Amino acid sequence: MTVNHIDPTLLAGNRKPLANYQATHFLWEVKDKVGTITLNRPDRKNPLTFDSYAELRDLFHQLKWADDVKAIVVTGAGGNFCSGGDVHEIIGPLVALKAPELLMFTRMTGELVKNMRACPQPIVAAIDGVCAGAGAIVAMSSDLRYGTARSKTAFLFNRVGLAGCDMGACAILPRLIGQGRASELLYTGRSLGGEEGERWGFFNRLCEPEAVVNEAQKMAADLAAGPTFANGITKTMLHQEWAMTIEQAIEAEAQAQTICMLTEDFTRAYEAFVAKQKPVFQGN
Amino acid sequence: MTVNHIDPTLLAGNRKPLANYQATHFLWEVKDKVGTITLNRPDRKNPLTFDSYAELRDLFHQLKWADDVKAIVVTGAGGNFCSGGDVHEIIGPLVALKAPELLMFTRMTGELVKNMRACPQPIVAAIDGVCAGAGAIVAMSSDLRYGTARSKTAFLFNRVGLAGCDMGACAILPRLIGQGRASELLYTGRSLGGEEGERWGFFNRLCEPEAVVNEAQKMAADLAAGPTFANGITKTMLHQEWAMTIEQAIEAEAQAQTICMLTEDFTRAYEAFVAKQKPVFQGN
Amino acid sequence: MTVNHIDPTLLAGNRKPLANYQATHFLWEVKDKVGTITLNRPDRKNPLTFDSYAELRDLFHQLKWADDVKAIVVTGAGGNFCSGGDVHEIIGPLVALKAPELLMFTRMTGELVKNMRACPQPIVAAIDGVCAGAGAIVAMSSDLRYGTARSKTAFLFNRVGLAGCDMGACAILPRLIGQGRASELLYTGRSLGGEEGERWGFFNRLCEPEAVVNEAQKMAADLAAGPTFANGITKTMLHQEWAMTIEQAIEAEAQAQTICMLTEDFTRAYEAFVAKQKPVFQGN
Repeated sequence: MTVNHIDPTLLAGNRKPLANYQATHFLWEVKDKVGTITLNRPDRKNPLTFDSYAELRDLFHQLKWADDVKAIVVTGAGGNFCSGGDVHEIIGPLVALKAPELLMFTRMTGELVKNMRACPQPIVAAIDGVCAGAGAIVAMSSDLRYGTARSKTAFLFNRVGLAGCDMGACAILPRLIGQGRASELLYTGRSLGGEEGERWGFFNRLCEPEAVVNEAQKMAADLAAGPTFANGITKTMLHQEWAMTIEQAIEAEAQAQTICMLTEDFTRAYEAFVAKQKPVFQGN
Repeated sequence: MTVNHIDPTLLAGNRKPLANYQATHFLWEVKDKVGTITLNRPDRKNPLTFDSYAELRDLFHQLKWADDVKAIVVTGAGGNFCSGGDVHEIIGPLVALKAPELLMFTRMTGELVKNMRACPQPIVAAIDGVCAGAGAIVAMSSDLRYGTARSKTAFLFNRVGLAGCDMGACAILPRLIGQGRASELLYTGRSLGGEEGERWGFFNRLCEPEAVVNEAQKMAADLAAGPTFANGITKTMLHQEWAMTIEQAIEAEAQAQTICMLTEDFTRAYEAFVAKQKPVFQGN
Repeated sequence: MTVNHIDPTLLAGNRKPLANYQATHFLWEVKDKVGTITLNRPDRKNPLTFDSYAELRDLFHQLKWADDVKAIVVTGAGGNFCSGGDVHEIIGPLVALKAPELLMFTRMTGELVKNMRACPQPIVAAIDGVCAGAGAIVAMSSDLRYGTARSKTAFLFNRVGLAGCDMGACAILPRLIGQGRASELLYTGRSLGGEEGERWGFFNRLCEPEAVVNEAQKMAADLAAGPTFANGITKTMLHQEWAMTIEQAIEAEAQAQTICMLTEDFTRAYEAFVAKQKPVFQGN
């Protein structure tokens, strides 16, 4: 039996549009296929709570199936990114819990990072002001980071008596900025400044504070106008190849790129080139 | 039974001298045990074709057994490195192929990278002007990269509707320049400039355009005059240890360095030191 | 059976205090829970010998069980860090050995690195002047590196006819400074200068020569006054996650951080925050 046409209802059950999602614990806005998450408790520098953690985790999980959102921006309201887990709403309860419940919590926060890495949409973090604790982790777990000169990114876990190994930091941060620099940040909890962060490769770019969200959204819109199916494969493979040998990675890429060469976007690019035009990608 | 002398014919069948190899699809010149590959279609900025891909793959495969070539320089003619897979000769045919043939192609290009990493000779890329697509991959897959301020290195796969996961890029590029910077280049396809590339660790050195090939050849000649057996082991281990634990890597190095301590070059270096002379290495 | 109180003698056999350890082949001083190792043959720029190698290996092994030492500084006397394996006392004998004894040696030196990574104390290297061969490896294997502008760090193995794969260098150095820069240092054996080393992320900080040991000790004392149990877990996880997938790393961190959330230091930090005080950590 051959498939002669594509039945649009065939995988309909797997598609979960999110453009009209109504967020409860943060702002969620979709424009030009770019979804922007804004942490929005500016009076407290946008801390995370059990509820906002869980909603973020669930939203990024659902994004895996959302084909109406092609890139994500994460930012914070009021000149700060995120102050991390709320001391009163999270740290306080945690000190009273026992091992099984604590593991439930650390697995829940880790699941947020897993879901951020598993969704196909590239994530651009727009970071101004305070970016601390779980906030620094959300920044680290994004694909691209736009910062400001005044931003202060602190993996401050050891300041609250904890280890630097939170939500994947001991694995991911060293690959972003090098093992020695990551070690310093994780052992000391000190703030990374904007210029230092750009020099180290943590930030892809520094922007003016009033422009950083717009610049991140502009980059996200560019990505959303690109070959988004292929972009999702790029993200998947950056993730998959993390701990492969080079031989394994090359074979994995040979297979993954084969899939992309079968997309119409690849043909569109070729035809546009021959016609000396700019390709218009459709993400399929 | 003990071996009291080395029979030079014993492994003769494993030695494949390449100094006199006659290349068809690029220039190949060997001098002072340094083989220089020059991609040579300057009117088109030295694109790769199916034929030149295959010949490069085969040459690097044969270099594994060539003991008359001790280091490699890869460069391009006419002020550009390589413009990548030829749009008309490669991209055009690819858009018409089906999955098995596409996988045959992506495995063939991946095999070039595998062979570049598997041969014992260190590879120095001399990069001026355009270095794009498969050209950027050849640069990335070299051991050292000498660039120029005006060089433009673009992993431009997403510009032609493909994913950044081409020939190992999602595994290798992040280890050269960091995960965040690699992500940006692979998602956007934008050009990396020379100074930026040096600052990020992609380029080991920037040279004047008229000097970059000579400087690369000089470095390659220095390496070829060194303990080349040991250099080949360095290359092997940089490759082997890519995805090992630290304990595994340390044991692997203990064994590999033991082999090198049994070479005459190690004795030569010691004797030269005692005699306050410069050692003359022979690569055995 | 439930444990209602902690019996201080219960694990007494596992505790090996080292504050009063009498070192034979280097200086060992403990102050404010910071142990300082000073290689001390300044007339020869502090080379290592078979004996000092073995004693260093054993000291770092014992540090795993020493709860009276919470951070380590490694340095050298007389304006140099370490000139590596002594040519007369190590290289000379090695050239006469056969494979099993050579492997015994390379495994012994590798064991030093394994033990440096396995002890829970963060290690701060204070590096001035010559830092070569095994000295460069000791620097590389530390957690943090403070250097001076005039310091010269050389992974000079290929200068003595050997491969760059010594004691884990082909695995660890690329994660500190990037694969391309590490390749250059390991293939050529050239010296890395202080400013270059800071720019590349090898050094966390450059200090004045007369201040570098004090600055390293000050950092070590800060770490020793922190949540040292958690710091040890940070070190363990930076090590454990070296070759894990991201999913594995996140699960491993969820478990490891759960342990830290059960420490009194975590509660102390929370209570200090609520009381608007600075926490006083006890390392338990």
